[in-house]
Amino acid sequence: MMFKRPTAGDVFIVSLIRAEQIFTLLSPWVSHTGGSYVKECSIGRRGDVMVRGAPAIAIVGCLSLAVELRAGAGGDDPVTFIRESLCHLTSARPTAVNMGRAARELMEFAENESMEKNSEQLRESVIAWIEDMLERDVNDNRKIGNYGAQHILSGVPRASVTILTHCNTGSLATAGYGTALGVVRSLHALSRLKRVYCTETRPYNQGSRLTAYEAVAEGIPATLITDSMAALTMREMDITAVVVGADRVVANGDTANKVGTYQLAIAAKHHGIPFYVAAPSTSCDLSLESGRDIIIEVRPSEELTSINGVPIAAPGIEVWNPAFDVTPHQLITGGIITELGVFLPSELQAALTGRLTAL
Amino acid sequence: MMFKRPTAGDVFIVSLIRAEQIFTLLSPWVSHTGGSYVKECSIGRRGDVMVRGAPAIAIVGCLSLAVELRAGAGGDDPVTFIRESLCHLTSARPTAVNMGRAARELMEFAENESMEKNSEQLRESVIAWIEDMLERDVNDNRKIGNYGAQHILSGVPRASVTILTHCNTGSLATAGYGTALGVVRSLHALSRLKRVYCTETRPYNQGSRLTAYEAVAEGIPATLITDSMAALTMREMDITAVVVGADRVVANGDTANKVGTYQLAIAAKHHGIPFYVAAPSTSCDLSLESGRDIIIEVRPSEELTSINGVPIAAPGIEVWNPAFDVTPHQLITGGIITELGVFLPSELQAALTGRLTAL
Repeated sequence: MMFKRPTAGDVFIVSLIRAEQIFTLLSPWVSHTGGSYVKECSIGRRGDVMVRGAPAIAIVGCLSLAVELRAGAGGDDPVTFIRESLCHLTSARPTAVNMGRAARELMEFAENESMEKNSEQLRESVIAWIEDMLERDVNDNRKIGNYGAQHILSGVPRASVTILTHCNTGSLATAGYGTALGVVRSLHALSRLKRVYCTETRPYNQGSRLTAYEAVAEGIPATLITDSMAALTMREMDITAVVVGADRVVANGDTANKVGTYQLAIAAKHHGIPFYVAAPSTSCDLSLESGRDIIIEVRPSEELTSINGVPIAAPGIEVWNPAFDVTPHQLITGGIITELGVFLPSELQAALTGRLTAL
Repeated sequence: MMFKRPTAGDVFIVSLIRAEQIFTLLSPWVSHTGGSYVKECSIGRRGDVMVRGAPAIAIVGCLSLAVELRAGAGGDDPVTFIRESLCHLTSARPTAVNMGRAARELMEFAENESMEKNSEQLRESVIAWIEDMLERDVNDNRKIGNYGAQHILSGVPRASVTILTHCNTGSLATAGYGTALGVVRSLHALSRLKRVYCTETRPYNQGSRLTAYEAVAEGIPATLITDSMAALTMREMDITAVVVGADRVVANGDTANKVGTYQLAIAAKHHGIPFYVAAPSTSCDLSLESGRDIIIEVRPSEELTSINGVPIAAPGIEVWNPAFDVTPHQLITGGIITELGVFLPSELQAALTGRLTAL
């Protein structure tokens, strides 16, 4: 997710909806600065548009609700409208934990507010809460970037570092700045990034389309590789650390993320390269003890067998297309980078207990 | 490479030349059964057509020479023509060792023959030598398939097995039957194959196009995955063994093969799954001590950034596109399957010494 401001007060959301283009700029979204929502919003009709990136899903889900509330949705009973909307939103992507957490926090806030405010006031305070969430998320990402960069650099004083990352975890997957790619951004801002290697991230090519786009747009030195080249890159290209994002981190540190993450973690371990997961604490789910309990979404075969509707595989072949995998905490050797600091998987539960809303 | 016989005596070679189709049938090739070459042959003009698969390169290279000799090439000095042609052919793909070996053997044969035969007789005996080579190669592949199947089954009496393979090593990459896919074929013929998982094998998608095609065509139970899903598949799908092909196996067992092989071997080791390399002894190069000496071809960026000419990556991104990688012998835990038997990497040199023509 990326916010652009071509005219004052307008915000655009960038989506993957048309694969043959790098981006499609969707209809003008929501004024982040001015507080006035502009024009119609196609994302407001939830389900029309694919939004990707676990953090972005929560943001866009809540912003779509804000747009509807701004238009007066819910009438005299906005609490019921909010509850039904959030229920719809949380069912969209079970692996990502952010939306569920945001929904629960927002619902609790709305119910409390409703005790002392009328419908119009309630709508306004919920909209303000959502806008605060957006700003807080971007700030959290900056903290993730800085904590991660410092942690990686602490092992290599004075040297420039080479990072390998997977999928897209940048401005296009979050409220802004990014998680794993936020760490890369911070290293680049410190003039300590030699290069980032991005996997193309089949089958949906988030690496080749989105991470590559962000890197080119910002002048970050970046090289695209296929997913199959990651181990060779680790052996040949002096990789300092592997940094990936997360859809969900559970209590013992096991991490669900884009499929391929597990394989990267195995290869990093084999080469003695620190493996980091970068995620806001809102992506952590202490209610699950281990990754065995995470449900993994299996997606349609067509994502593998065609690109832009053009077949790229032999007709009739069976396909297995799990969207995520779970990396066991033993392989997360660098640490889990959050806005609260960098923790070993074994430290995570203690560090976050009492600081997270229950799910 | 695959031979079809739509009419008696005709042989077609199938190529990857048009990516939007699974196959392109090239112009009729060479009569394998009748001994008379038919029609014109576009591959006869070397360089026009991409042939893939290390074993197939040697076969097609030599067959193209046979076609030219049949047409009278070389005139009164066929030995010089043969030498120049073979020099051209061996420069096409340095990683594959088969062409070099075939060229050297053929040249030696031609020089010996030239001492007692006239030009026309020499051409005929060289053509016969090449036809013998084709037949010998297919027979060697059947032996590879049988040795590999028996070795894998010896560890799991009575049970059906699940295999994971990479790239294409079947009839489309060899003279026929295949190496790693030959092992899969043999297991299937024995009714002991539960399923084969095929990686799509980016960036050139030999798995999704060719291996998938061969599996569907022959009714072999097969499932396509992305390269990034291999480790997850090993963990979740009860993989009995990983079997891949080779472009070159050197004296200590280090193996150059399609990029991604190294990463698969690391993942197999991590899961305790036997990792096999299947290759004819002609792919073994005892003149190199270790894989460090193998030169790896780096191919154009466009193979990653577009499919069928349509961009699939952000413009301007840098790319690293090594075509092969080297798997160290320590990771080849199952063995190296040849037409002479299955050997541990440490046994290979002793097993092959004296049985291979020097390179």
